[in-house]
Amino acid sequence: MQHYFLNQPLAIDQVVAIPSLIKKHWLKVMRAVDGTKAEFVDDAQNVFIGELINSQIEPAIKIIESKPFNAELPFSITIACGVAKNDKADWMVRKATEMGVDRIIFFAGDWSIAKWQPNRVNKKLERLNTIALSAAEQSHRNRVPVVEYQAKLNTIVSADYDQKVVAYEESAKAGEESMLHQTVNQMQPNDSMVAVFGPEGGISPREIELLTDQQVQPVGLGPRILRTETAPLYLLAAISAFSELS
Amino acid sequence: MQHYFLNQPLAIDQVVAIPSLIKKHWLKVMRAVDGTKAEFVDDAQNVFIGELINSQIEPAIKIIESKPFNAELPFSITIACGVAKNDKADWMVRKATEMGVDRIIFFAGDWSIAKWQPNRVNKKLERLNTIALSAAEQSHRNRVPVVEYQAKLNTIVSADYDQKVVAYEESAKAGEESMLHQTVNQMQPNDSMVAVFGPEGGISPREIELLTDQQVQPVGLGPRILRTETAPLYLLAAISAFSELS
Repeated sequence: MQHYFLNQPLAIDQVVAIPSLIKKHWLKVMRAVDGTKAEFVDDAQNVFIGELINSQIEPAIKIIESKPFNAELPFSITIACGVAKNDKADWMVRKATEMGVDRIIFFAGDWSIAKWQPNRVNKKLERLNTIALSAAEQSHRNRVPVVEYQAKLNTIVSADYDQKVVAYEESAKAGEESMLHQTVNQMQPNDSMVAVFGPEGGISPREIELLTDQQVQPVGLGPRILRTETAPLYLLAAISAFSELS
Repeated sequence: MQHYFLNQPLAIDQVVAIPSLIKKHWLKVMRAVDGTKAEFVDDAQNVFIGELINSQIEPAIKIIESKPFNAELPFSITIACGVAKNDKADWMVRKATEMGVDRIIFFAGDWSIAKWQPNRVNKKLERLNTIALSAAEQSHRNRVPVVEYQAKLNTIVSADYDQKVVAYEESAKAGEESMLHQTVNQMQPNDSMVAVFGPEGGISPREIELLTDQQVQPVGLGPRILRTETAPLYLLAAISAFSELS
């Protein structure tokens, strides 16, 4: 069954106009006809089953029942990672959305190899947020992650989160293996975490000092060296394993 | 430091000829010069540091010290998944290698949407094994995963493994959440597991019967719907989290 986000309150028996993007996908690509059902998420993350009505004249959705379902991680996880080239950024946003991320913030690291030109940032974010929407539909999420850009790491890690961690290669090399598990065990439902991942060029000494000043906890992600775009997925899967499969 | 696999026994002070692929990458791409060091893995998964000597005349590697290091998962994990289109298969092999897989077997599922033509299988496997080698070098593994093809799922799941699991979407929908953790907890170091993932078209009733007959355990991978190529990575990260980070 298809799964779409409607940014409005919903109730049973309500008839809702179909936003044009959903109309295009559901009617044209998926060939929905009168009576075809789909899942619709309201603006408070509740899921409903709705069916297509009046498709020949003025297509609309009739909400027919509630479908209580929560596909969200118990915590709100923000991934902050150094800017990446187009295809890697696309890929990471898509997969992190499948794995339950709440927010992705790309930042310009001191040693970033990829650069985002200031006049291209909005265009890139628009593209990445479209990818996040489509991946959230496919993985039947209750909410759509937000993709943002911050010029400075400082602004990210000085914000208010319950837990702050950084995936630091030196921690992995030093055999640090238990801090992520310990951190997740301390978290309560709805707690927030920001997890920082350096860009491909690595994290600079200045940035490490900044992270240390902000009490950001270094965590190891196992003994294998993970690429910049793979490490956030490992972290999300590990948090899910510790909190949803244990 | 670069990391390469030499399929031979190694010992300190030994001088080794450089295989042509390594020569091309290390000398041409990475511009190694006399005295440049790299890691070399022998045929028994031991890691050594070696340096380049005699680069102007007849380049060779001199093994200078042992570097005891194990980046392997404590278990031997085989991923069996329905054949996928080129880019998804490439991507999955690369990322599963980073995450510690031991063997990847693609199979032609009853409901596979992608098909591998019989006369193209060898060419595809050659390409995928090259990707696995390169990813194993980058993630500093002790061994290179093997990528294979089997026409029948039956041949795969009737083979001898300590644990056999299948990621079955219906298990996830039914809220099954603890079997993977329980299974991993039962495993001893060096135990083997095969994990089956259906193709994009899903697993057929005939295949489910076959899996049930072979006592393959259905496991849920959390409440979000993961794409065919993402699910194996989630499983590998979860196994690493349960066994390496706990």
